[in-house]
Amino acid sequence: MDDKKVYLSERDIPRQWYNLAADLPTSPRPPLGADGRPITPDMLSAVFPMNLIEQEVSTKRWIDIPEEVLEILYRWRPSPLRRAVYLERHLKTPARIYYKDESLSPPGSHKPNTAVAQAWYNKQFGIKRLTTETGAGQWGSALAFACNLIGLECKVYMVRISFDQKPLRKSMMRIWGGTCVASPSDQTEFGRRILREMPDTPGSLGIAISEAIEEAVSDASGKTRYSLGSVLNHVMLHQTIIGLEAQKQLALINEKQPDIIIGCAGGGSNFAGLAFPFVNDKINGAHITIIPTEPTACPTLTKGPFAYDFGDTACQTPLLAMFTLGHGFVPPPIHAGGLRYHGMAPLVSHAVREGLLEPRSYDQIRCYEAALTWARTEGFICAPETSHAVACVIDEANRAKKEGREKVILMNYSGHGLMDLAGYNKFLDGELTEYHLPEEELRRSLAAIKDLPKP
Amino acid sequence: MDDKKVYLSERDIPRQWYNLAADLPTSPRPPLGADGRPITPDMLSAVFPMNLIEQEVSTKRWIDIPEEVLEILYRWRPSPLRRAVYLERHLKTPARIYYKDESLSPPGSHKPNTAVAQAWYNKQFGIKRLTTETGAGQWGSALAFACNLIGLECKVYMVRISFDQKPLRKSMMRIWGGTCVASPSDQTEFGRRILREMPDTPGSLGIAISEAIEEAVSDASGKTRYSLGSVLNHVMLHQTIIGLEAQKQLALINEKQPDIIIGCAGGGSNFAGLAFPFVNDKINGAHITIIPTEPTACPTLTKGPFAYDFGDTACQTPLLAMFTLGHGFVPPPIHAGGLRYHGMAPLVSHAVREGLLEPRSYDQIRCYEAALTWARTEGFICAPETSHAVACVIDEANRAKKEGREKVILMNYSGHGLMDLAGYNKFLDGELTEYHLPEEELRRSLAAIKDLPKP
Repeated sequence: MDDKKVYLSERDIPRQWYNLAADLPTSPRPPLGADGRPITPDMLSAVFPMNLIEQEVSTKRWIDIPEEVLEILYRWRPSPLRRAVYLERHLKTPARIYYKDESLSPPGSHKPNTAVAQAWYNKQFGIKRLTTETGAGQWGSALAFACNLIGLECKVYMVRISFDQKPLRKSMMRIWGGTCVASPSDQTEFGRRILREMPDTPGSLGIAISEAIEEAVSDASGKTRYSLGSVLNHVMLHQTIIGLEAQKQLALINEKQPDIIIGCAGGGSNFAGLAFPFVNDKINGAHITIIPTEPTACPTLTKGPFAYDFGDTACQTPLLAMFTLGHGFVPPPIHAGGLRYHGMAPLVSHAVREGLLEPRSYDQIRCYEAALTWARTEGFICAPETSHAVACVIDEANRAKKEGREKVILMNYSGHGLMDLAGYNKFLDGELTEYHLPEEELRRSLAAIKDLPKP
Repeated sequence: MDDKKVYLSERDIPRQWYNLAADLPTSPRPPLGADGRPITPDMLSAVFPMNLIEQEVSTKRWIDIPEEVLEILYRWRPSPLRRAVYLERHLKTPARIYYKDESLSPPGSHKPNTAVAQAWYNKQFGIKRLTTETGAGQWGSALAFACNLIGLECKVYMVRISFDQKPLRKSMMRIWGGTCVASPSDQTEFGRRILREMPDTPGSLGIAISEAIEEAVSDASGKTRYSLGSVLNHVMLHQTIIGLEAQKQLALINEKQPDIIIGCAGGGSNFAGLAFPFVNDKINGAHITIIPTEPTACPTLTKGPFAYDFGDTACQTPLLAMFTLGHGFVPPPIHAGGLRYHGMAPLVSHAVREGLLEPRSYDQIRCYEAALTWARTEGFICAPETSHAVACVIDEANRAKKEGREKVILMNYSGHGLMDLAGYNKFLDGELTEYHLPEEELRRSLAAIKDLPKP
């Protein structure tokens, strides 16, 4: 076993996902329907298959990973645990920095961990076709990839402006047999209405979600469902394979419990995937600092209130108890598209409320500086989202140096940046600026949720 | 050890490169100067550092890999040997298909294996700055990556049309601190002359090579040299780490000698890197079919004569004894940019002459079909160059099925296709056609070399 790369064999892959809902000191608040009352599983059945709804509401600690799901994940899992020795030397830190390399999946991020599981459960339930929305295309390409291997049709509504400006991930979806249309489209009632009212709209995630859900629930055959790439409990669950693998890998090299866990957080799934198994250790008494990092341009956990809010801009979803900037919040176009979400997974939000997590925000300038340091030491080009974790890792490694302590830092390397090089160009051209969300704008955005039920 | 991924630990990495020149049954013809006489090492010393020139002419069988070079390669080496079980199942073949995954290097191909070594030897020799040319940008980004880690300046002349149309690899060079200029440029005598004569030229590799060499040899301080990413003996040498790792990995899983070795061949370095250690086995009596694959649009080994020709369009290099389509040959713009070279490495060419290799050509339509099958079974998106190897692997796996034989097939997976998705799009849009080089055009191109010395 080398100290720079720790591999795990297929036979040692975790065979169960970990469900944090089983161990939280207090119960998370339930999702509410339009009537302000907790929703029931039945109410979600037109959107999701019942086997995934059962996972969504489960409080069972361990849930078996189907063998057929593992057989697909083996294409790139177990993912290597790598040690960033070159960055350590550059920083002259006594800290040992490890990272789970989720960039090695075919779509290049952690997203297929849940895409494969969701596609499989839908297939088991007799579903033939999945719909979803995508912004920059990370999630859409992961779902197309998964549906191709499982044998489902995949229809992706891609926000118009990304559809026009970011052809790369659209190509990936085509290669894997997915159908990708620009949203708003003429293929749904809602899309056609928007096109009549605003023919030149660049589209939005809210509109794309509405179209994808409409197509799923209006299929008379009942064979279409909708799939979401983050936020929900079952998505967090499927990602915990990351942290569970990391625990086994650290044990293999006789590395004690990490002192610090770091992951970037948009909807929360990549962060939760690495962190939740360690949150369990923390609940059981381990001393671990667990840090979700987010952009100062979209500071959900660090500036938003904990409130009931809609998961989407179009107010179609149940009300979720979470940290939120308001469902109407439109963050400036920072390049970390995956971190531009107004809310945060209810399980991550609840863990923050319980004092288990210590969120932190980073400006895009510092993040690109960190990404450049990473590329020029470790060699690899990280995703703009991932750079928010790298910036925090560098901070913590420098602090360990100042304190003269051999801390163990573990990061989730959520994806590579090869499809997002334009952001690096803008940074190198000096076209990017620091951006901190103005209080004024936050107040305006939060006004829209003041009449919703309180958690 | 899983059967789908065979890892090698750092301590088991090969510590010497293998030099095929030591074992060829007859000696390759020497390079000739403008006067038709064999060139001497001194004549190359303005272009390359003497330590690499020594490697270029060496007939020593094993050459030590410097520890400092290994320390950089460890970022992604040893590369995994993977088994394509999902493709095997899809094809229902009794063949076992293995591939060396060279796509995992930070620049995404096998190129940095030699870029790192070349940068290191130049640094040792006291050089401060390397120049090179690049077409689509694979080689330029690999050299920028290597120079960044070794501590050299890197200047890349990128063919104008690629510079304008393919911004992605240009961004990679910037991220790693390289300087990339469009060629023809106003920074060399030759570039300025071309710009005066043809202000609207899209540029060519020949022009870019001339500019890069001019900048290297005209630096009065003597601290600049030129670097080439394929064709030359020392480049083949540095790539043999691929095949040497593969031999150790096959032994780890008790897999016998492969029956068939397959790699795509442009200048020859990725093919040679995997194949040469096995060519040695073949010279020593092993029964192995070793297949370099090339495009029917640029069929150097399958249609070209073995002749003395220049390595570049501008006739600046020594004359090399190799298979060639003529130095003035301009292949149609197929998307596998790395395979559009008129010549072939002298060592690969000589091994073909010795009957050790069985070259084969594939049309781009069959290659994209193969790449799509790969993406929809194995999951990964391969480079257009690599697809020429995948097409041959599928052929051989189907033949093994027909013959009912458990053949072992080993391929070099030279790179991922994430920077080249436009070609996939054109294929899926039905915009690509089969192309076989017309005899007439080949005759015309070869007329230009009829008065050169004969090997």
